[in-house]
Order: sequence, then structure tokens, then C-alpha cells
Amino acid sequence: MRMRHKPWAKDKLAAYPQFVVGNPIEYKGNWKKAFGNDNPIHIEVGTGKGRFITEMAKANPSINYIGIELSERVIVAALDRLIEAEVTNLKLINFNAENLEDCFAKGDVDQIYLNFSDPWPKTRHEKRRLTYKTFLARYERILVDGGEIHFKTDNRSLFEYSLRSFSEYGLLLTNVSLDLHNSDFEGNIMTEYEEKFSKMGHPIYRSEVKYQNMK
Amino acid sequence: MRMRHKPWAKDKLAAYPQFVVGNPIEYKGNWKKAFGNDNPIHIEVGTGKGRFITEMAKANPSINYIGIELSERVIVAALDRLIEAEVTNLKLINFNAENLEDCFAKGDVDQIYLNFSDPWPKTRHEKRRLTYKTFLARYERILVDGGEIHFKTDNRSLFEYSLRSFSEYGLLLTNVSLDLHNSDFEGNIMTEYEEKFSKMGHPIYRSEVKYQNMK
Ligand SMILES: C[S@@+](CC[C@H](N)C(=O)[O-])C[C@H]1O[C@@H](n2cnc3c(N)ncnc32)[C@H](O)[C@@H]1O
Ligand SMILES: C[S@@+](CC[C@H](N)C(=O)[O-])C[C@H]1O[C@@H](n2cnc3c(N)ncnc32)[C@H](O)[C@@H]1O
Repeated sequence: MRMRHKPWAKDKLAAYPQFVVGNPIEYKGNWKKAFGNDNPIHIEVGTGKGRFITEMAKANPSINYIGIELSERVIVAALDRLIEAEVTNLKLINFNAENLEDCFAKGDVDQIYLNFSDPWPKTRHEKRRLTYKTFLARYERILVDGGEIHFKTDNRSLFEYSLRSFSEYGLLLTNVSLDLHNSDFEGNIMTEYEEKFSKMGHPIYRSEVKYQNMK
Repeated sequence: MRMRHKPWAKDKLAAYPQFVVGNPIEYKGNWKKAFGNDNPIHIEVGTGKGRFITEMAKANPSINYIGIELSERVIVAALDRLIEAEVTNLKLINFNAENLEDCFAKGDVDQIYLNFSDPWPKTRHEKRRLTYKTFLARYERILVDGGEIHFKTDNRSLFEYSLRSFSEYGLLLTNVSLDLHNSDFEGNIMTEYEEKFSKMGHPIYRSEVKYQNMK
């Protein structure tokens, strides 16, 4: 089902500057200023409707979260959730992750979440996958040394691909679960897609990888 | 069910010197002699009753195979199968893989198969897992440069553990399947355990890892 265009979306995002950072480029190297403190910063790339990042922000008040989402009409749903949650440690950015380095300097980000990223199953679309090597390089250029990516998906091919891509890039796999909901992982916060696909019986795959000192 | 001791097993193994190498230490650095040619050598560690390695040997006559199995009474079943198959490119060794380096010199082995290795689920038994770092180091000391390990199991925890262990050791993950029997992998040869556990509905996990030039 195609959604009709929502011309009001842009206005709504602009109406909540305390939640939606309209000019993220200005904060590059200086995100402390946006949050008013120097707590660690975790970002989610492809936040969708924001359930995961909002719950994470509620559960971990001493971490600052930024949800990055390309689609205007999707991020509006995340904004609605954030308006209701009223947390001060979460900001949203309506931005394409291809340009992450415009918003973040090396070391600005402590951790990156990727949840149920678009699988782009065709080989000719490999470059669009958020775990393709050019994205891994972008993440490296904004993360602290030893920064981590935490990745969840129900998509078997994307997960298999990503494990290979992480390994080829030289990332250290520190944690992997091939059936998250039947594992001893504690405190899992479900995303919208996770709820949907786990109800359909799909196992949820999860990995944590770390950027090592690569001399 | 405990099997009773089979005193005749040792005699039977000794009766087929063309199939069972009784003195593998003598061939260290010189396995060409055992096979009468210098084809590449692939070994399986924990061969069990030998279905996989015998079928592999039949399917790939220009590769030499060696099945290594600790248990005398289990390897006798592999010998029975080999007597029937009558292939000349497969040998069996009744040996503990902890002592692999006594039988093989650096470069003797081109590829290692691990199939449904004992999971040793307790943390205090980690060292016994065939993908523990000391085993990975042993494999490195007998493999050619760029040699590979091909690993299959239905045991989720062991597979998760092994992916981490491979990564920590610095091995390159070149291939991974999280549901081998529903993947596009072609020419899979099932092991005894694989048949049993896939019939019970377990997904079969498979990975290929490669020893990289580690300067
Ligand atoms: C399949 S949805 C998953 C949403 C959410 N993470 C979840 O698990 O429910 C993927 C989301 O990523 C967004 N996305 C895809 N590529 C992106 C990019 N390059 N930059 C920012 N967001 C992106 C899409 O617009 C979409 O909302
Ligand atoms: C679970 S069975 C799997 C057998 C076969 N690979 C299969 O997939 O059907 C594991 C086998 O590995 C053997 N094994 C375990 N540790 C070993 C070691 N250190 N050296 C040689 N064989 C070993 C056991 O005796 C057992 O036969």
C-alpha cells in the first residue's frame, strides 16, 4: 500500500526542535552542546518508527541517543512517540546515513545500532546494505576507538552477508546470537520489525562487533 | 546406552593397513608416500562412522582424505564403510586431535573439516571444543598458508561460540550459512549426525574460515 504524500510532515518535524535536530551539521564535533552534557552517544541508523531507541533512552538515562531516519513520513511516527515519552536524552535526525560524516566527527559516537536494516537482496544493490564495507568505513570515521556496532535482523541472507562483511573489514565479533528470543540475552528491547517478524516465527539474529586497533 | 568394550577393534584396525594408518607419526612431512601421489590433503577431525569422508573421497578422486577419530569402536564402523567403498584416496587414523602435530608438519594439510564436533557446553570444558583457540593454533601449524576450516553443526551454542573464536583468532570468514539445507549450497554431503539432527528439524549451520597472512 502506498502512503500518500504528507506535506505536513516537514512542518511537524520543524515544530519540535528540542526533539528533532534540523541542522545536525552544526553539531559536528560538538554534540555535547545539543544534549547539554557529555554522556556517551549511541546512534541508531534507520530508526523507523522509533520504538527501540525511545525505550533504550528511557531505560538508560545516562546515555544520549540519536535516531537517524531517512524517511520523513516514518520519522514523524518516531517523533510522536518521543513527544509522548518526553525523554531529554534522545534526538532524531531526518538524514541519509550515506552522509553521516557531515554530522559526526571522529569520536563523536560511542556505539551504533542497526536494526532490521533493509536487506537489498540483489547483488547489484550490495552497496546499499548498511553493513557494506563503505558503510563500515563511514562508521569507523565517526566512532570512538574500540567503538561497536550492534546489529539485529530476522533476514538470514543479510545476516550471513553481514558476518562476512564484518570479518572482511577486520571487525572483531564479540557476541553473536542465532536465536535471540531463545537465548540468555537479557533486557532485549524489541523494534517494530522485530515484533512483527518474531510473531511470524522467524528467529532473530543478533551480533556485536568491535572496531579493533588496526595498525 | 553404553557399548560394551570391543577387544577385537584394535585387531581389526591392524588387519587393514592399506586403510588404517597405524603409525601416522612416520608420515609426518611425507604424506605423499602414504598415498603414492602429491594430491592435496583434506582431513576430518572427529570422523565418527565415516559417512562424510567416504562420500567426499568418492566424489573427489583427486583429493586425498584422512579421517581422524579418537574412538576405536567408532572408527571401526568407518573402516567397514571404507572396505566396502574401496577408495584409494582415503585413510583413517585412530588418534587424538590434540596431538595432530605429531603426525603432520606445517603445510601437510590443505583443508580441515569439522563436522558436528562434540559441543562441550560447560564453560569449564571450553578447552576441549575443537574450535577453541589452542586447536585453531594446532590447525595453523599443520595447514598450508591460506588453509581453510569447513565446519558444520546443528548445535547453536557451539556455532555461536565458534564464530567468536574464529574472529578472535583472526580467521577470515569467507562463507556462512545459517540453514544449510535451505540454502543454495550445492553438493552437500551429509554426515551421520547431520542426517539425524536435520530430521529432528534442527537447522544446520555451516561456515568456512581461512587462515590469513597474519604478519
Ligand atoms: C526495515 S526498516 C526497520 C525500522 C526499525 N529499525 C525496526 O527495526 O523496526 C529500515 C528503515 O531504515 C531506513 N533507512 C534505510 N536506509 C537508510 C539510510 N541510508 N539512512 C537513514 N535511514 C535509512 C528506512 O527508511 C526504514 O525506515
Ligand atoms: C558428535 S560425533 C560426530 C561424528 C561425525 N563427524 C558426524 O558428523 O556424524 C564427534 C566425534 O568426534 C570424535 N572426537 C572428539 N574429540 C576428538 C579428538 N580430540 N580427536 C579425534 N576425534 C575426536 C568423537 O569420538 C566422535 O566420534
